[in-house]
Amino acid sequence: MTERTDSPMVPEQRPGDGHEATMLLERARAAVDPVLRAALGSLPAPMRRIALYHFGWENADGTPAQGGAGKAIRPALVLAAASAVGGPTARAAAVRAAAAVELVHNFTLLHDDVMDRDTTRRHRPTAWTVFGDADAILAGDALQALALRLLAEDPRPVARAASVRLADCVIELCAGQHADTDMERRAPGEVTLAETLAMAEAKTGALLGCACAIGALYAGAGDADVAALDAFGREAGLAFQLIDDVIGIWGDPRRTGKPAGADLAARKKSLPVVAALTSGTPAAAELAAAYATPHRKDDLEDLEHIALTVERAGGRDWAQTQAADRMARAMQEVARAVPDPEAAGGLLALAEFVTRRST
Amino acid sequence: MTERTDSPMVPEQRPGDGHEATMLLERARAAVDPVLRAALGSLPAPMRRIALYHFGWENADGTPAQGGAGKAIRPALVLAAASAVGGPTARAAAVRAAAAVELVHNFTLLHDDVMDRDTTRRHRPTAWTVFGDADAILAGDALQALALRLLAEDPRPVARAASVRLADCVIELCAGQHADTDMERRAPGEVTLAETLAMAEAKTGALLGCACAIGALYAGAGDADVAALDAFGREAGLAFQLIDDVIGIWGDPRRTGKPAGADLAARKKSLPVVAALTSGTPAAAELAAAYATPHRKDDLEDLEHIALTVERAGGRDWAQTQAADRMARAMQEVARAVPDPEAAGGLLALAEFVTRRST
Repeated sequence: MTERTDSPMVPEQRPGDGHEATMLLERARAAVDPVLRAALGSLPAPMRRIALYHFGWENADGTPAQGGAGKAIRPALVLAAASAVGGPTARAAAVRAAAAVELVHNFTLLHDDVMDRDTTRRHRPTAWTVFGDADAILAGDALQALALRLLAEDPRPVARAASVRLADCVIELCAGQHADTDMERRAPGEVTLAETLAMAEAKTGALLGCACAIGALYAGAGDADVAALDAFGREAGLAFQLIDDVIGIWGDPRRTGKPAGADLAARKKSLPVVAALTSGTPAAAELAAAYATPHRKDDLEDLEHIALTVERAGGRDWAQTQAADRMARAMQEVARAVPDPEAAGGLLALAEFVTRRST
Repeated sequence: MTERTDSPMVPEQRPGDGHEATMLLERARAAVDPVLRAALGSLPAPMRRIALYHFGWENADGTPAQGGAGKAIRPALVLAAASAVGGPTARAAAVRAAAAVELVHNFTLLHDDVMDRDTTRRHRPTAWTVFGDADAILAGDALQALALRLLAEDPRPVARAASVRLADCVIELCAGQHADTDMERRAPGEVTLAETLAMAEAKTGALLGCACAIGALYAGAGDADVAALDAFGREAGLAFQLIDDVIGIWGDPRRTGKPAGADLAARKKSLPVVAALTSGTPAAAELAAAYATPHRKDDLEDLEHIALTVERAGGRDWAQTQAADRMARAMQEVARAVPDPEAAGGLLALAEFVTRRST
């Protein structure tokens, strides 16, 4: 399962729709980028070069690039959670931690792209295709170290608890990526929907939950509120992944930065596909048969046929209903930790932004 | 450059020679193993399985294994440095940090074996050959996180400074591994001895230095003493690598756990080889010519010829003189931080053990 949500494009502003989220993302980038640039600048030259390329700040030859470093959803969640619980002071205190979360995210992208042999990321060739597997692995290793170093350098006592959470999250992300590659190796009939959801939670939900939890920690939240904001991020993350998988099948590649139908071509067991495969419908059997035959390059009819079969088996509807359901649960969690709707507004706007972009 | 020093064999006891080091290594294993086992036990099942296999504690099928987890030189250095500066209390305080250093070491071994395509580690098939590249990469990622988590969970204020040092060390290790793979790609004539030494310092010296520095930190040492013990570890580490490279060419494979002459067969630019190549002797030109031709499998005459050519070009003598010189510098550094020879005895015994095993 690959994530298509790090498009470098500036999110479109639609009237009364996503404007607050756009502003929060831009403010998060503005706050976190200087910390990220300083951290990357401290790396030894070869690691720095790969990292700056991966972040979209340099071209492969080391010249400055115009691209962006993704939409900064995770740092924005750290800052929004800190702000929701503790206001502007907490938000300011959490900037370094927000950068650490973004470094962890990017470390996992570097490694996942190597493992998944993905060749495109944020509309550019992935780091391993440019610098080779070894250097992409090493740059990822260095980014993980840099993330935990940023937190270790933070003199605030809360940085310790944040470090433990972030390290735990890395371990969960690893387990999620393992489950993903393991499931991809198995036959379509051997994969359950429950384990696909668990994998998506570990692979995508965990870091969004961790981002919110760390923001809450920096605002001095108690255990129950930290847990509620973690759950909020996890639910929103699952909604995010569900929608991302829907886009991966039926979305517009100009918006996703990935070729249309790439997941289907690779016979990936994404959430809508597994929902369809396990639906018990006649279309499910048809889909299983289609997935048993490898895709022939540029056979667009094959991709259209499979997309339609997933839809006929209910995979698209299921994913969109699930996403809406996850979003509703996310709202409940946030209301538990931040009862004041105005204070919670930023978190809700970000969660809605992430899911609304699909429709 | 691969390290042959993690043989699971119990070091031989020679009369009056290495006995103290053997005891320190055994005591380090006894102190650190329970922390390591608990930490690995906390990993999600698939990551745990790969980690326990890599540590030699389980077979590939998950049954308990008889093998050992390496000789624990790095944890022993952490504990010896803590003990030398602060006595038994400091040593006890540093056990968790010693485990963290050992986790970092093993994370880099897992990743280096993937990158270097090494198939044997501690007399067993490497993790990637058993579980595949992706899982070996993920298990390594998880071990890095676990290392920094162990330190983050340590309530002692010194854990913060130790975390910063360990994270910095990971970044240096990555740069060292990058330099190694980069140098291996270049022609023999394009590699200088200075950069080979710098690479070996980053790849091997950095973590031994970090181990000693962290031990000193846990004993409450001041900046100058921490720096001196870092330098001690780095110099000892370079001596260690020099001797390791000598063993890699002229050593006994039953002691090294690697096939004889594997470095020469792979045309590796190890320290004695680069010293020979840059010696300006007639043998240097002969060696360059031999290295320009790939090794044919099982051509033992080729390996013997190259080993002799490296020796005739002075590579063996240079490496052994350098190792002795580095050891002398290491002694000076330790004397600076720990003037009492009795207190410094453990550190010296470990450094001598590491280099003496070659001769």
